[in-house]
Amino acid sequence: MRFLHTMVRVTDLDASLHFYCELLGLEVLNRFDIEAGRFTLVFLAAPGNEVAQVELTHNWDPEPYDGGRNFGHLAYEVEDIYGLCQRMMDAGVTVNRPPRDGHMAFVRSPDQISIELIQKGESLAPQEPWSSMENDGVW
Amino acid sequence: MRFLHTMVRVTDLDASLHFYCELLGLEVLNRFDIEAGRFTLVFLAAPGNEVAQVELTHNWDPEPYDGGRNFGHLAYEVEDIYGLCQRMMDAGVTVNRPPRDGHMAFVRSPDQISIELIQKGESLAPQEPWSSMENDGVW
Repeated sequence: MRFLHTMVRVTDLDASLHFYCELLGLEVLNRFDIEAGRFTLVFLAAPGNEVAQVELTHNWDPEPYDGGRNFGHLAYEVEDIYGLCQRMMDAGVTVNRPPRDGHMAFVRSPDQISIELIQKGESLAPQEPWSSMENDGVW
Repeated sequence: MRFLHTMVRVTDLDASLHFYCELLGLEVLNRFDIEAGRFTLVFLAAPGNEVAQVELTHNWDPEPYDGGRNFGHLAYEVEDIYGLCQRMMDAGVTVNRPPRDGHMAFVRSPDQISIELIQKGESLAPQEPWSSMENDGVW
């Protein structure tokens, strides 16, 4: 058996693609616009890491997507946690748990899916503004 | 960058390991019992497919873990969807969406995490009791 994907529902597909692709860095592998069912499915993966995908489900007739505590987060290893968090911040995304230790950070998607970012390899040297940045919200 | 894991919180670690390992078929890769923080982390993966993991977080001081609609499900490709669903049913797990088509089924973990099962390769030939089994609940 093998893992295929984690599915999350998204309210605003454009905002979600902006977050998951342009900011986080995933790529679109497939997109299916299903007129009959009035929904769109988009399969995403980290470049070169297509074995583990995220499926975005966008129902064209929106409903509010609340969060629950049974789901925790999606975790990605990243090349440059400072650069990625800066890109998120510049785009108006709150870095809920800043990478004070050069190792780990948390952000949330537009639908409040918690995303853990882990620096690849050894932690980066502590660096401002991250070292002294407080937590903001929950993740 | 690469995908590391999907984290879910579990109320009853033994019941969850029974579900994810003995019934679903995942394997334990690592387990960390953190006395200081009063939590246990268990990393699971499909055998031979360790690149995509599920992290179970068990907080020793329990809280109710409700579900939310922003998270959808975890999906696994399986070798024998009928055999797996039978094993689930025999263990008292509700097959919320039976594999009527020999292709897809949904079950839920003890903490109501929805799990999609997809038959590897071509769909199996329709077979009772699955072909005529009704949906049960939501997933």
